[in-house]
Amino acid sequence: MGKTLTEKILDDHLVEGELTPGEEIGIEIDQVLTQDTTGTMVWLQFEAMGLEEVQTEIAAQYCDHQTYQFDFKNTDDHRFLRSAAGTFGAHFSRPGNGICHNVHRENFAAPGKTMLGSDSHTPTPGGLGELAIGAGGIDVTVAMGGAPYYIEMPEVVSVRLEGELPEWATAKDVILELLRRLSVKGGVGKILEYTGPGVETLTAPERMTITNMGTELGATSSIFPTDEQTKDYLERVGRGEEYVELQPDDDAEYHDEIVVDLSDLEPLIAQPSMPDNVVPVSEAAGEDVEQVIVGSCTNGGYEDILPVAKMLEGREVSMETETIVAPGSKQASEMLARQGWVAEMMAAGVNFSEATCGACIGIGHVPASDSVSLRTFNRNFEGRSGIEDDNVYLCSPEVAAAAALKGEIVDPRELEDDGVDAPGVELPDQYDGSKTDLIAPDEAVDDELIKGPNIGDVPLKDELDSNLAGEALLKMDDNITTDHIIPATQDILMYRSNIDKLSEFTLSRVDDTFAQRAADADGGFLVAGENYGQGSSREHAAMCPMYLGIEGVLAQSFARIHRANLFNFGLVPLIIDEDTYEKIDQGDDIEIVDDVREGVESGQEEFTVRVNDDWEATATLNASRRERDMLSLGGKLPWTKQQAEGGDSPAPADD
Amino acid sequence: MGKTLTEKILDDHLVEGELTPGEEIGIEIDQVLTQDTTGTMVWLQFEAMGLEEVQTEIAAQYCDHQTYQFDFKNTDDHRFLRSAAGTFGAHFSRPGNGICHNVHRENFAAPGKTMLGSDSHTPTPGGLGELAIGAGGIDVTVAMGGAPYYIEMPEVVSVRLEGELPEWATAKDVILELLRRLSVKGGVGKILEYTGPGVETLTAPERMTITNMGTELGATSSIFPTDEQTKDYLERVGRGEEYVELQPDDDAEYHDEIVVDLSDLEPLIAQPSMPDNVVPVSEAAGEDVEQVIVGSCTNGGYEDILPVAKMLEGREVSMETETIVAPGSKQASEMLARQGWVAEMMAAGVNFSEATCGACIGIGHVPASDSVSLRTFNRNFEGRSGIEDDNVYLCSPEVAAAAALKGEIVDPRELEDDGVDAPGVELPDQYDGSKTDLIAPDEAVDDELIKGPNIGDVPLKDELDSNLAGEALLKMDDNITTDHIIPATQDILMYRSNIDKLSEFTLSRVDDTFAQRAADADGGFLVAGENYGQGSSREHAAMCPMYLGIEGVLAQSFARIHRANLFNFGLVPLIIDEDTYEKIDQGDDIEIVDDVREGVESGQEEFTVRVNDDWEATATLNASRRERDMLSLGGKLPWTKQQAEGGDSPAPADD
Repeated sequence: MGKTLTEKILDDHLVEGELTPGEEIGIEIDQVLTQDTTGTMVWLQFEAMGLEEVQTEIAAQYCDHQTYQFDFKNTDDHRFLRSAAGTFGAHFSRPGNGICHNVHRENFAAPGKTMLGSDSHTPTPGGLGELAIGAGGIDVTVAMGGAPYYIEMPEVVSVRLEGELPEWATAKDVILELLRRLSVKGGVGKILEYTGPGVETLTAPERMTITNMGTELGATSSIFPTDEQTKDYLERVGRGEEYVELQPDDDAEYHDEIVVDLSDLEPLIAQPSMPDNVVPVSEAAGEDVEQVIVGSCTNGGYEDILPVAKMLEGREVSMETETIVAPGSKQASEMLARQGWVAEMMAAGVNFSEATCGACIGIGHVPASDSVSLRTFNRNFEGRSGIEDDNVYLCSPEVAAAAALKGEIVDPRELEDDGVDAPGVELPDQYDGSKTDLIAPDEAVDDELIKGPNIGDVPLKDELDSNLAGEALLKMDDNITTDHIIPATQDILMYRSNIDKLSEFTLSRVDDTFAQRAADADGGFLVAGENYGQGSSREHAAMCPMYLGIEGVLAQSFARIHRANLFNFGLVPLIIDEDTYEKIDQGDDIEIVDDVREGVESGQEEFTVRVNDDWEATATLNASRRERDMLSLGGKLPWTKQQAEGGDSPAPADD
Repeated sequence: MGKTLTEKILDDHLVEGELTPGEEIGIEIDQVLTQDTTGTMVWLQFEAMGLEEVQTEIAAQYCDHQTYQFDFKNTDDHRFLRSAAGTFGAHFSRPGNGICHNVHRENFAAPGKTMLGSDSHTPTPGGLGELAIGAGGIDVTVAMGGAPYYIEMPEVVSVRLEGELPEWATAKDVILELLRRLSVKGGVGKILEYTGPGVETLTAPERMTITNMGTELGATSSIFPTDEQTKDYLERVGRGEEYVELQPDDDAEYHDEIVVDLSDLEPLIAQPSMPDNVVPVSEAAGEDVEQVIVGSCTNGGYEDILPVAKMLEGREVSMETETIVAPGSKQASEMLARQGWVAEMMAAGVNFSEATCGACIGIGHVPASDSVSLRTFNRNFEGRSGIEDDNVYLCSPEVAAAAALKGEIVDPRELEDDGVDAPGVELPDQYDGSKTDLIAPDEAVDDELIKGPNIGDVPLKDELDSNLAGEALLKMDDNITTDHIIPATQDILMYRSNIDKLSEFTLSRVDDTFAQRAADADGGFLVAGENYGQGSSREHAAMCPMYLGIEGVLAQSFARIHRANLFNFGLVPLIIDEDTYEKIDQGDDIEIVDDVREGVESGQEEFTVRVNDDWEATATLNASRRERDMLSLGGKLPWTKQQAEGGDSPAPADD
């Protein structure tokens, strides 16, 4: 039986397990990537583990989310990250140099490599044949220390592309079409592998728009085979020698196949407030637009902004619409500036900003109340733009430029009547922007950590107790998100390096008395319904409850990444049935009757929960051997230390 | 006796009074300027007065402070301001188009005109022979309605310039030298008029760096005569026809004269944390610099950034120093981009940002903790950068670029050893950036006001009571600033359009229970020592106490602008002696024994204060006829309305 491309790369990196969907596998990681809202904790954990040097081929620390540096805590975080990269041997990308995914693809992404990144859009380099996966910070820390990454083997699905994109239809419309068909849950537990004759019609940057936004399908990753287009791109970024041809076997077997005929596509748009709420632009046409933003890791490349510049050249944007361009990388900004396009956009009425994630996560350029914002970004979850009840649409740069010119949503094909030609896709001969702001490990300016007053210590948990008992401190409904557990608004986000302070906001969106009650209680439980911990991967959603003394979570079910984070931070995730959930009230006294430490270590799956010394129920622990060991020791950090001391990787470097 | 230039312009615009220092004069205003943190209240008051159209030759609304739009309230303010400019007939400069003073000088500033602006750096166009004065928002509102502006005639002081600036010394060093000599109080009550043979050696943009930062001397305004340099600049900005030759008479008499020999100057620097803490750069050399920012209304012009670009071309900034360039206007950005300089700066490691006031007022690019920031700005008051205990230095663009290259403070003359030549001053042949983002009244996109949920009503006060009695709600020390009364941090600044909400923060830095206590008390007094209300001109510092029900302030003395604002909002400012101040305790019952309304109207100066029904003291009201009338009616807004109804200006327009 032939292999898929995914299986080939995994096979090449397999350290443990078999490539059977659902089985836990351990894989070697070649590259890691982290950014400024997750990176501080990554390096604090790296330090706490006693590791001395990055062991992966490439580790890169980017500063991209908080680059407007709205608070000294942001600036302090950036300085700490520079010092950590220098101290431990990672590349450092300075604030303003661009979004991690854009800078990474320009400088490091390469076919056949594996990457782990503490950002959900880590799969971007899949467009170059790299297998890249987003994960929690401590998973990245440990991989950077040289240890394997463990994951349940996903199903591999073929997305077969046929035909060729017509004028005005773009790579963004390919992924919007998939979102329209599959929904934001359509990729869960899957790796999407692009196949078919349509692949070769797409340039590498177009492919990376698609793999980037595969995240919005819930996919573990997305990947394209490599070919002349890949080679061409690598040559243009000055890394032609890194090209490797990678194709699935002709008789590769896929779990499923989805066919997209590119020639059927037209300009699409995701309406508020979910990326899968997709319709043809013509169906949304006529809506007044007060703000247009071009940029982000999805559509912030040189190739994404150039079409906008061409469409705006010699024209003026609507005076009712604020049009902001924030490139994905400074290399893109510099090239566009050198070629005169930045001046042209400014002349047309564009506010040209720094290379940043910024507005995509609600930091800067928050829309006005009761207004429509059109963005080339990847997410339009309600409130993410920084204002509740927002109306954010997602679209291609071409659709965004058309709206900027007209002041309303318009099918860009209609602009041909005004003499606006389809700009098409154009790559520069060479990506020749300077690399001044990317500091290589051997050019590092720091050799020790610089911690400002907001940079705290890594919270550590004791080994698991035999006796687990405490109050049910909070009872929650179904579908509690990590945004409920640790909100990501700027006023809270700036404490991501300071768990002592950040933990004060734990679950404040559910009950603002919780954090204080938990801190006072010296132990206790969380109780939740189905799908507890869905949403963003932020590990702070496990770390902060742990810091407040929470020892276990009783829920009807857990979301995948948050479940992993609970193990990583030593909280026992126990599954209860609906009856038990209904019967437990907030404030009840909970006791696990069994010897928990022994049960976890011995592989016990069923535990007896006694409530108010009055009634009992059964709770289930589903965990792999590795997960049980982590739980017993108090989490992934002590577990990794123990592994290292036992002679297993990651080994602290001796030099 | 001959006239000074100031007297000539005032004479041309005099409506009331005589040009005797200390006497109140009324002058006609030709131009007004307002920005986004003071402008919303200006227009709400314009609306509340029932005015229908701007009466000045030019009124311009700029959006420059909050252009990063960190909160929807900022974006809503910008939309409201656009709608107000359109509705009432002002020019509107879109967010991202630049700082008010820079855009104004490029487009509107003209010799011989008078201007009032609700921003303390309004005097900038003095470098073109315009007499421009900063004032509270309602003063701007009323002037925009066509009424005269009343001010005590300042003393006119000659600053005689001799010689010529040597290489590496700049216009910034001229004003830093004056600050070094005169201190930040040296210009209080004065207009500085530049004279002497050195004037003609300075280009108009250099002159405007000097007049801009005259504000830091406390001067009412600063002004240069006009000559070939003025004509040359006006021609280059495409307004040569607006040139008028303006010189003082040969026998003009000045109140005082200060002589500066330009040829004696060298690169200077203001050390933390006051603009007058000035030393030669060489004395501060060697200090590590973590952040360099080039921009602001003082040094954000094309002519200011070009030298930086020349110095950085082909070089790299220190990797230990974050270097940010935020031009003062988009016209400057566009020209620098078109000429390739933006790309060169990016290549050298500059983070090139939007045209904004931003960092100068602590919005964005807040320095890291315990670090040095070098800025080409005009103010380095402690904490203004957005972090307490900051270390902000002020200097010329050349000194900033030198520090960026070296990573430490360095005398730029030392860079000549490295082959860095003095860039000198170079003006472009034409300031040919586009004017897309400046919307003229006849191109307005709105004809009615658009108010988001954060945009409140103008608070109005009833006419003055005959009986004034209430509790001494807060007793304060000497030197309370308007920053104490209404803080300007971003979390509070975003409520500048919403007095109901903003008032909750009144005097919170002194006593955070005050606002609630005042709201509950239904009337009462503030008690303070010397110099109450010093600092920024913000009228909110009078408006918010008024909104909370405060009826009078008993203080040993008042700062000039805040005193005017108290009259403008109908609060009675009474002067008490030191003994009385010492004897009154917070919580005492205060009663003004006299019929206050009648006393204010009749010109009575001494009032009897009875405390706790136990003892009495005398309090003094110093007020002009006009000020008494305003107080009696409840403030400047009802007074202006009454004037209009009485047939006096400002007349509501009929069309």
